Amino acid sequence: MKTNLGVIRRYQEYLPIENKFIVDLCEGSTPLLETCRLRDALGIKARVYLKFEGMNPTGSFKDRGMCYALSKAWEAGAKAVICASTGNTSAAASAYAARCGIKSVVLIPEGKIAFGKLSQAIQYGAQIIQIKGNFDQALELVRQIGEKSNVAIVNSINPHRLMGQMTAAFEVVDVLGDAPTYHFLPVGNAGNITAYWKGYTKYHQEKKSSRLPKMMGFQAAGSAPIVQGQIIEHPETVATAIRIGNPASWKGAEEARDVSGGVIDSVTDEEILEAYDLVARTEGYFCEPASAASIAGLKKWSAKNDLSEKDSIVCTLTGHGLKDPNIAVDRAPTPVTCEPNFDDVMKLISGE
Amino acid sequence: MKTNLGVIRRYQEYLPIENKFIVDLCEGSTPLLETCRLRDALGIKARVYLKFEGMNPTGSFKDRGMCYALSKAWEAGAKAVICASTGNTSAAASAYAARCGIKSVVLIPEGKIAFGKLSQAIQYGAQIIQIKGNFDQALELVRQIGEKSNVAIVNSINPHRLMGQMTAAFEVVDVLGDAPTYHFLPVGNAGNITAYWKGYTKYHQEKKSSRLPKMMGFQAAGSAPIVQGQIIEHPETVATAIRIGNPASWKGAEEARDVSGGVIDSVTDEEILEAYDLVARTEGYFCEPASAASIAGLKKWSAKNDLSEKDSIVCTLTGHGLKDPNIAVDRAPTPVTCEPNFDDVMKLISGE
Repeated sequence: MKTNLGVIRRYQEYLPIENKFIVDLCEGSTPLLETCRLRDALGIKARVYLKFEGMNPTGSFKDRGMCYALSKAWEAGAKAVICASTGNTSAAASAYAARCGIKSVVLIPEGKIAFGKLSQAIQYGAQIIQIKGNFDQALELVRQIGEKSNVAIVNSINPHRLMGQMTAAFEVVDVLGDAPTYHFLPVGNAGNITAYWKGYTKYHQEKKSSRLPKMMGFQAAGSAPIVQGQIIEHPETVATAIRIGNPASWKGAEEARDVSGGVIDSVTDEEILEAYDLVARTEGYFCEPASAASIAGLKKWSAKNDLSEKDSIVCTLTGHGLKDPNIAVDRAPTPVTCEPNFDDVMKLISGE
Repeated sequence: MKTNLGVIRRYQEYLPIENKFIVDLCEGSTPLLETCRLRDALGIKARVYLKFEGMNPTGSFKDRGMCYALSKAWEAGAKAVICASTGNTSAAASAYAARCGIKSVVLIPEGKIAFGKLSQAIQYGAQIIQIKGNFDQALELVRQIGEKSNVAIVNSINPHRLMGQMTAAFEVVDVLGDAPTYHFLPVGNAGNITAYWKGYTKYHQEKKSSRLPKMMGFQAAGSAPIVQGQIIEHPETVATAIRIGNPASWKGAEEARDVSGGVIDSVTDEEILEAYDLVARTEGYFCEPASAASIAGLKKWSAKNDLSEKDSIVCTLTGHGLKDPNIAVDRAPTPVTCEPNFDDVMKLISGE
């Protein structure tokens, strides 16, 4: 059964590696859910699909690239892998490292970290090292260690990660039978928009699709370097997974936008949180706040631009809401309390 | 592509319903991952597979049954669904209710709830009602409301849930080409072991498998009513998802054990947490503590019983570790801290 294969085995011609080095957690094959209530809520005539990447093994799209990065590191004989990350990257790196028995090391800046975010790396057995410095220093150390030792870097400068992430675009085309007309997604480090575009382009060159989608990327307003055309020194947004002031794949994102005839725009935190609620309450997918930037972007863009019934739209939800549940809890009203009897409960249910 | 279909569409002959009422979040099709490092760590010669149910949409196996329960409630014209639950059941119920636009109501006892556990129900838009009473009173109210109103009960007394949960056994047979010789799983409310057994039995009757597995259920030692043969008034265990003193499917579990020639035994919290670490660190799957009861059970049982190379073992991991990340964080040592320079970090990595 196809579903029991990870992305490398399913797309091995694009991700070459000897079979014995394939590191696999059955990532990918994520849903492409056709929406109904969300589309209606946004008043859109086109078909709208959600690509829910939160259903990957570690709960985010990063698994697609990390499986290939770890496979290549294992093949190369790396004695460990290292990244500077407090979130989805460290989770994915540590999981795949555990699967193949390679040590994983996670560098974090001392003192500024919500430790809960690291629960996954901790549980997968990573060595967590706090350095007396900031995130940029941690990243610089990772680069040095990758150059001078037998420890492989799995931060986003690792080119195998974008190669693996292309598989999400392949899956969209394989399910729909063609590329969609528009693809909306959040933009943080900009690796994902770059990888989707590479994937769509490759399939199109091979005549597996008849068209290319317009790539529609959305940054958080307080963290929108590509939109503003300049590095943001102190990016701020509730959508922590895209709180990045100097994206590693900046040029790739601009190329995807320009060649596809798409857009890179921004959405406010308020719009992001509204979309975060909307997608959960209309379609039942609980995503990370950052993921909802794609839905917020669709709402913003479709309010001013026409979409026809012939259009098909894919929105990527990059990670699972369980990655950051406090956002949901903190914003919830205090639940009502009532006496434990039928009539009182029924009154509350009926809204009387 | 198969992976884009939920369990009702894939197994509709077993889950009859009109197409227009199918409520679907692309649940199921979860991995059956063959282990290598875990098997070696346990010194087992047989093949050992993990069925990782944490990769369902809401992060647990409950989605398999809840999609069918909501479909049937929708078909029946229910104006709302209700459950008493603080965990996986309320998450699944609320998600599927959101998907089809039915109101979901979650009853909880006042004051005793870790609110974080409810993040999913909250975000999916459930109405949370605290009653001035205990969990048993909440459940009794749910029963009354189900009988006297047009609100459908989706607690485990809803028979459609076990029907949907059978699909996990179908998937195992569909992937392996036959039933395994042993199936290990956690036992809490005992619905899952009952449903797997029904699924295996059905497939066997239809000659889709040549054999039936021995069903190997494991309760937490502080919450082991079936093992002890009596209701536990105050069940206690770190594995909250199986902290149940009077299982709804008690008889079904005993039947599965007795007819299959299996075992229902208990494992201590210490054994559960050891297994919880082991499966994450050898195979890269981060599960709920309760899920690890299956692995702890396999370790305990295989230490005293022979397994041959011809045996095949499936262990179900019922839910995702992100459901309860604090267990991982609370048990982690404080990370080491070092100066931000190459030599100091390399010393730590090398363990010098």
